[in-house]
Amino acid sequence: MKKRVTLRDVAAAAGVHVSTVSRALDPKTRHLITPEVVSHILKLSEQLAYRPNAAAYSLKTNRSRTIGIIVPDITNPVFPPIIRGAEDALAQQNYVAILGNTDGSPQREEEIIDIMRARGVEGLLLASVKARDTVVERLAAEGMPIVTVNRRVDDPGTASVVHDERDGTSRILNHLVGLGHRQIACIAGPQDLSTGRDRYLAFEEGRAALGLERDANLVTVADSFNESAGERCAEELLARDIAFTAIVCANDLIAIGAISALRRHGLACPENVSVTGYNDMPLADRLLPPLTTIRVAQYKAGHAAAELLLEALSSQPGERVARHLVLPVEMIERGSTQAVTVKAKGRARRDTPARLSPA
Amino acid sequence: MKKRVTLRDVAAAAGVHVSTVSRALDPKTRHLITPEVVSHILKLSEQLAYRPNAAAYSLKTNRSRTIGIIVPDITNPVFPPIIRGAEDALAQQNYVAILGNTDGSPQREEEIIDIMRARGVEGLLLASVKARDTVVERLAAEGMPIVTVNRRVDDPGTASVVHDERDGTSRILNHLVGLGHRQIACIAGPQDLSTGRDRYLAFEEGRAALGLERDANLVTVADSFNESAGERCAEELLARDIAFTAIVCANDLIAIGAISALRRHGLACPENVSVTGYNDMPLADRLLPPLTTIRVAQYKAGHAAAELLLEALSSQPGERVARHLVLPVEMIERGSTQAVTVKAKGRARRDTPARLSPA
Repeated sequence: MKKRVTLRDVAAAAGVHVSTVSRALDPKTRHLITPEVVSHILKLSEQLAYRPNAAAYSLKTNRSRTIGIIVPDITNPVFPPIIRGAEDALAQQNYVAILGNTDGSPQREEEIIDIMRARGVEGLLLASVKARDTVVERLAAEGMPIVTVNRRVDDPGTASVVHDERDGTSRILNHLVGLGHRQIACIAGPQDLSTGRDRYLAFEEGRAALGLERDANLVTVADSFNESAGERCAEELLARDIAFTAIVCANDLIAIGAISALRRHGLACPENVSVTGYNDMPLADRLLPPLTTIRVAQYKAGHAAAELLLEALSSQPGERVARHLVLPVEMIERGSTQAVTVKAKGRARRDTPARLSPA
Repeated sequence: MKKRVTLRDVAAAAGVHVSTVSRALDPKTRHLITPEVVSHILKLSEQLAYRPNAAAYSLKTNRSRTIGIIVPDITNPVFPPIIRGAEDALAQQNYVAILGNTDGSPQREEEIIDIMRARGVEGLLLASVKARDTVVERLAAEGMPIVTVNRRVDDPGTASVVHDERDGTSRILNHLVGLGHRQIACIAGPQDLSTGRDRYLAFEEGRAALGLERDANLVTVADSFNESAGERCAEELLARDIAFTAIVCANDLIAIGAISALRRHGLACPENVSVTGYNDMPLADRLLPPLTTIRVAQYKAGHAAAELLLEALSSQPGERVARHLVLPVEMIERGSTQAVTVKAKGRARRDTPARLSPA
């Protein structure tokens, strides 16, 4: 590549001192120089295609205008809209983001954070946190500005943007009860993540409030938020030989996996078992069947989280207050849920133990 | 945040000169110092949690170990696996990526590239290029290392990793002809993008080779690779009052849009019209109906492109040779295609002009 044009080159071309060029190019100090000289220098710096060197700027000001965004896995469709929202907010203040994927591994998370810190990131946007997260605790103790998005940590000292999990789960339960379901199973998400835990707690609260059957066998816990965990958990529910007419799943991917497992056992969704998701991820409306789910504002969450982070970066460390935003959710009714029918009762709701899979 | 621990702090703690610390920490110069001193300094730098400052390193070596990845829109499901593949390859050499979205706007692309250059990115991975791309031409002329991924530019001087579009399209056509289809419509992709153009050229070659009907009315061109463009184009085909039993779509999202439009006109896929996609994006197997499509190796393409870029960065500008990789594709047969039936012929294949939509 061609050698970078420096302030020194512009100064030499203009026949002035480097500090004069520096003042002329900065709108805040421009008034110190005569307008003719400013105009001459601006023209020359354009002709020479001078661009400020971010590394030099970063050393001088200790600001990289770079933040780190860490997600479990960018190929999970929940995260791209969050990242996009964050980037759009960052771009407005000329910030950029370095992206990292943890695959849910705390060790990988630490490595990525080390790499990002070596690059001088000014703050972190984390979509990968556990409810108790030692990495976040350590970083927070060191004073690194952090905002978690989609999930939160238990420590209220770390700012967060999350969705209203309680309201979402409650809407799902009310919807199912309204369709006549009383024996409702649950595939909960990982309980060390705030989303998994909060949705499950809301499920328990809801089924107590609605007077639903509370057999512990109706609940199973997925070890991750993906399709294969959903399949395994649905298999487990079916193997338990309990009666249910609906399954509340902790997210859309788990619901997709559960529907596949039901189908393998000859049970159709929604004819035999209604299934609900959570997130309304892209294409949830085009699936077979289209998913009844809770729409969360992913793009908005990413955007708001980046704004909180930028706000923290522009305030003094002592003045920072950890803010917590809870965004409202929406219930989206589609084809994966339907009213309990006699036929459904005959298939999946039974009073005597029986094999659910057809002969 | 706590003040960053510098080389100077480690030197003071160890009671040696800064240059000794610097030599002790660099594996390449470590042999110049006695092993006892090296071990003492390494222990101290660990205790003090010393981390090299990337901005200082960048100024000294003119290397940021950062590259830019530019995509049209990260929320299009084609791109996350490409980005993930690239990041995994970059991480192996301790490189990180700054991400940018262009939304297909050349102006936004220029802005993003300027921001990235100010951050000292050493090279660019571009998934956003047009076949003739003036931004890429300018950057290449300046000597910026570039690899395009998924798409390519016409200029063979710019390295690329793409998929075998000709083979993919030919497999789709052979599959449809094998099912008895002869009147095959096409929703081509944008013709200023290599993917859109190469798939369409292969479609024309294929239908000539197979002796299929070549009515110009059977082809329509989408202005973007998304669902709404697919809907509009299918509406256009239906309005033309021509007979067809299948539609070859330039990508999966266009196919999803086309299927929706057909459904609005009372035409079922695959019963009345078979529809094919391209990419095998995540969840293509879970759609209604599951898509027959061409699987491209997105993760692998991202990984290979990043490796090509790293290779270019480690060689001298004069020695760089633009390499071009064409990755093989795979045909995935699913529910959106079926053999032409008498019933299908009765609905969508007609010899006399008639309205396709039911009364």
